[in-house]
Amino acid sequence: MSKPITLYTVGTPNGIPISVALHELGVEYNLRPISFKENEQKSEWFLKINPNGRIPAIVDHKNSDFAVFETSAILLYLGQHYDPEHKLSYDPIKEPNLYSEVVQWLCFAHGGIGPMQGQLHHFKNAAPEKIPYGIKRYFDETKRLYSVIEKRLETSGWLVGGRFTIADIKTFPWINGGHRAEIDMSEFPNIQAWLERIKARPAVEHVLTPQ
Amino acid sequence: MSKPITLYTVGTPNGIPISVALHELGVEYNLRPISFKENEQKSEWFLKINPNGRIPAIVDHKNSDFAVFETSAILLYLGQHYDPEHKLSYDPIKEPNLYSEVVQWLCFAHGGIGPMQGQLHHFKNAAPEKIPYGIKRYFDETKRLYSVIEKRLETSGWLVGGRFTIADIKTFPWINGGHRAEIDMSEFPNIQAWLERIKARPAVEHVLTPQ
Repeated sequence: MSKPITLYTVGTPNGIPISVALHELGVEYNLRPISFKENEQKSEWFLKINPNGRIPAIVDHKNSDFAVFETSAILLYLGQHYDPEHKLSYDPIKEPNLYSEVVQWLCFAHGGIGPMQGQLHHFKNAAPEKIPYGIKRYFDETKRLYSVIEKRLETSGWLVGGRFTIADIKTFPWINGGHRAEIDMSEFPNIQAWLERIKARPAVEHVLTPQ
Repeated sequence: MSKPITLYTVGTPNGIPISVALHELGVEYNLRPISFKENEQKSEWFLKINPNGRIPAIVDHKNSDFAVFETSAILLYLGQHYDPEHKLSYDPIKEPNLYSEVVQWLCFAHGGIGPMQGQLHHFKNAAPEKIPYGIKRYFDETKRLYSVIEKRLETSGWLVGGRFTIADIKTFPWINGGHRAEIDMSEFPNIQAWLERIKARPAVEHVLTPQ
């Protein structure tokens, strides 16, 4: 039997969420690693799948090979098409406010933690020159964003509605890599407890374990 | 009669899209400008509306004062609750692929052009020290993102499905400010034509005209 989804990815904070969502939902998929070394993400065939030339992207073979790019858009697509019981989100019609909260926190991570912590890793670990201004700018902003999450988790221990959703799935891989940017996680006890709960989930453990 | 929505905003690229969507949809709203000078976006009352302390945010008085933050999440919320004819998007049930494309291009702008061009403006115009590495990094990335849009517009002149949607609404205010970052717009003829079409819309003209 052919699998419904092909996932184009690598094991970065942007690549992990889709694997986790697919495992949580029990959706079978072909994994197609993209070689950054060979600049495969900019190849003509891949740009037809994601015109932005980034990972992750999926192709849905059950939907005439429809392609979806951008982590949060893929998570919402999987929610609509592969999560009829709304295990990882909420029913947009029956629970529109909780659904909107999921979208809000997805966007918070998508436009905030993702790009800002990405810049922090760049200035700290990848930039060819050491630029203290850049390191401090993104270190401070990343910590500020963590503190927003820390406070949010006070309510129920999860980002939205008292249970694990695609908002948590989108957010945790970045925060799980916070130590690489020398962020002192002991300042964020709610986040630490949340991370432990997430990493104890079989789907997450499976994805994070090197194969 | 009380208006259904209160919009908390300022006239920045992140603030404009919500005003445009509300005008396009003919939804009446109270405009509550947020004073950055007085750091109002970090005040206790505003953090209850947006825990991230950023604009824009809305409160929906017809939905028990439900608060929504993050531009793209607000646009999707307005689409679900205030656009029954899907004038600015597509019906997620009847046209799920076009709806997903709207979400994908919203996310592309939300995690790409928004944060990257934001960093460009910062390093170019706001940072207290001139850091050529930072300016070049974000100038190049912003231009790369523009080139993705330039190519996308080849197909139909709009980001999704041959007509104006919330994906265009989210994206254009950033690109309309590209000249501030000294991006040579003559390299992007499709974008220029798209911008002119958007700015000729009465709702957009109204929002962009200083009151």
